[in-house]
Amino acid sequence: MDKFRMLFQHFQSSSESVMNGVCLLLAVVTVKLYSSFDFNCPCLERYNALYGLGLLLTPPLALFLCGLLANRQSVVLVEEWRRPPGHRRKDPGIIRYMCSSVLQRALAAPLVWVLLALLDGKCFVCAFSNSVDPGKFQDLANMTPSQMQLFLAKVPCKEDELVKDSPARKAVSRYLRCLSQAIGWSVTLLLIVLAFLARCLRPCFDQTVFLQRRYWSNYVDLEQKLFDETCCEHARDFAHRCVLHFFASMQSEMRARALRWEGHARG
Amino acid sequence: MDKFRMLFQHFQSSSESVMNGVCLLLAVVTVKLYSSFDFNCPCLERYNALYGLGLLLTPPLALFLCGLLANRQSVVLVEEWRRPPGHRRKDPGIIRYMCSSVLQRALAAPLVWVLLALLDGKCFVCAFSNSVDPGKFQDLANMTPSQMQLFLAKVPCKEDELVKDSPARKAVSRYLRCLSQAIGWSVTLLLIVLAFLARCLRPCFDQTVFLQRRYWSNYVDLEQKLFDETCCEHARDFAHRCVLHFFASMQSEMRARALRWEGHARG
Amino acid sequence: MDKFRMLFQHFQSSSESVMNGVCLLLAVVTVKLYSSFDFNCPCLERYNALYGLGLLLTPPLALFLCGLLANRQSVVLVEEWRRPPGHRRKDPGIIRYMCSSVLQRALAAPLVWVLLALLDGKCFVCAFSNSVDPGKFQDLANMTPSQMQLFLAKVPCKEDELVKDSPARKAVSRYLRCLSQAIGWSVTLLLIVLAFLARCLRPCFDQTVFLQRRYWSNYVDLEQKLFDETCCEHARDFAHRCVLHFFASMQSEMRARALRWEGHARG
Repeated sequence: MDKFRMLFQHFQSSSESVMNGVCLLLAVVTVKLYSSFDFNCPCLERYNALYGLGLLLTPPLALFLCGLLANRQSVVLVEEWRRPPGHRRKDPGIIRYMCSSVLQRALAAPLVWVLLALLDGKCFVCAFSNSVDPGKFQDLANMTPSQMQLFLAKVPCKEDELVKDSPARKAVSRYLRCLSQAIGWSVTLLLIVLAFLARCLRPCFDQTVFLQRRYWSNYVDLEQKLFDETCCEHARDFAHRCVLHFFASMQSEMRARALRWEGHARG
Repeated sequence: MDKFRMLFQHFQSSSESVMNGVCLLLAVVTVKLYSSFDFNCPCLERYNALYGLGLLLTPPLALFLCGLLANRQSVVLVEEWRRPPGHRRKDPGIIRYMCSSVLQRALAAPLVWVLLALLDGKCFVCAFSNSVDPGKFQDLANMTPSQMQLFLAKVPCKEDELVKDSPARKAVSRYLRCLSQAIGWSVTLLLIVLAFLARCLRPCFDQTVFLQRRYWSNYVDLEQKLFDETCCEHARDFAHRCVLHFFASMQSEMRARALRWEGHARG
Repeated sequence: MDKFRMLFQHFQSSSESVMNGVCLLLAVVTVKLYSSFDFNCPCLERYNALYGLGLLLTPPLALFLCGLLANRQSVVLVEEWRRPPGHRRKDPGIIRYMCSSVLQRALAAPLVWVLLALLDGKCFVCAFSNSVDPGKFQDLANMTPSQMQLFLAKVPCKEDELVKDSPARKAVSRYLRCLSQAIGWSVTLLLIVLAFLARCLRPCFDQTVFLQRRYWSNYVDLEQKLFDETCCEHARDFAHRCVLHFFASMQSEMRARALRWEGHARG
């Protein structure tokens, strides 16, 4: 239990590491979720793009909000923003610092989903199979436009009768997955370059201001935790006194009644 | 054992975290339950919708009631509501606060079930395969209405002779699962947005009132726990004295009887 | 828990070992990533080289930047470079030493990817199948140049109708994979020889200077960690005093109010 409490205290003292842990956990959950999700394209001309893009963008939105919800700092941030001024000066820089750190952590899981989906390519194939330029594929030359649309809508369903074992289906699917992976890797690279610049070039600029903001953002978090703990202890203390008071008054009442009863008995 | 007791005390002091744990546990149990449940649609025209909707809605109802049962606060809430007024003023706000926190935790597991069922899609396909608009599928064009109804009722059973390897069955099933997943993701997104607004925008409004209600809701819970504990100690104390008294009187009686017996023996 | 803390302290005290661990972890992740990545060549003349070379070079670039990001020392390095001079003399040798140690660790994962890709050969076959000299293969002699280009573009897709079971495809593919593996093994050998020379011949030169630089690089890292820890403790201390002050003032206020209330009751 001492171990547990020390672990707890360690987590309490460095809230950032917990948040990093939560953020990592959400990312891992995202990977699990994506790999266990049963993707099935409707293969109907009108619904393909809707389903594909919906699955590419809706879960990340949900994960982003989950990331904000799971992060204790996002509540601390709003409270710091709305608190009455008091003696401690309100610094918009601290709020900006907290905001950016919350956003960074909340964006991790959605980006993992989007990149996974792009590198996997199924969503992309489903969403854009109808928008492919048929001129690129020799196998599609001898089709009427309506046949072509029906064929392209069926591209994501490789089990369908119409497109089974068709080399044209494979060519279109290969091309789209290639494009999807290329976009995925480009976005990954771009993000990593951005993160690298933000992390490694920051010390070149306002390092002191940055350290001060980090200190105060930590302080705000700690103050709130200590307030909660002290409230809890205060309530327990108060309840303890109330309950003891009740028992004491009950015993004195019982003694009084006992005396009265003895008086009756003697009288 | 000391570790265990301290862990227990820690949990007793912060009742909210226990309730969150119980709520999480119920959600995990729900996932296990759903994944181990063997769903089999009757594939009979009249029973399909009943079975599908029943499985979508009955277990969540049971889980909701389980959530209320497992939550200690739901009992505390009713007791706080019915207690005699006494010195501490009865605040309907505290009861509202407790009620909302109990409901939130009880709703977690049912929502997990409903969302799992929607994202999985089996229940939805079983419930609504008969209500599909046949105009959307070219493969269904050359059927009489009665044939169509029979065919649509068999859609959820892919092993059935009538629909085995039928591309029309696959198309209808794909369409319905798509719809089910779309509804599932929309509901998820809606719920997360609501939770986000409730959590992150609350500090913008009555933060002081909220903190006070939280304090008193904690207090009510703690008072009851301490009362129970003190009752237990008091009862043990009382019983201890009674038992000692019995033994003391028995010994004195035995001594008296022994004296009397000695008197008889001498007399 | 004590064990956990000691492990933690060990990691904190010897930052180099953590960095080696992170570097190893990234390399393992790279292997996993490569083996789970679904490589599919587009088999279109214009896109083959782009896709193959992109997959050979983009992920290593991303991994290199990841390696720099994951390494705490790369931030420490920039901060040491930009710090105001103060009493401790700025030694460009220390910065060089840190820079080289950071680069070495960041290069591990990208090299693992490149070598894996070369030894596996798929990327290489996809990238260079169009640039093969057709004169080397007798089976390709009786083709027109445009047919040849189409054929060579389809070499990486062994399931394609055009090249299925074609001995010419197998010959070209075998030749390219051979070349790829030869390059891979040569690069491996070269790197190992370089690492061997750098590690084993260094003690022959400026050993004292090297040890001093290592000492100071460790010192810079530890100074920063201790600064962070002390900041955290300071903030907690401050918050503790503030919260206690709030409760104390609240209680004195309540006492004053109680006195006033008693005064009213008596008056």
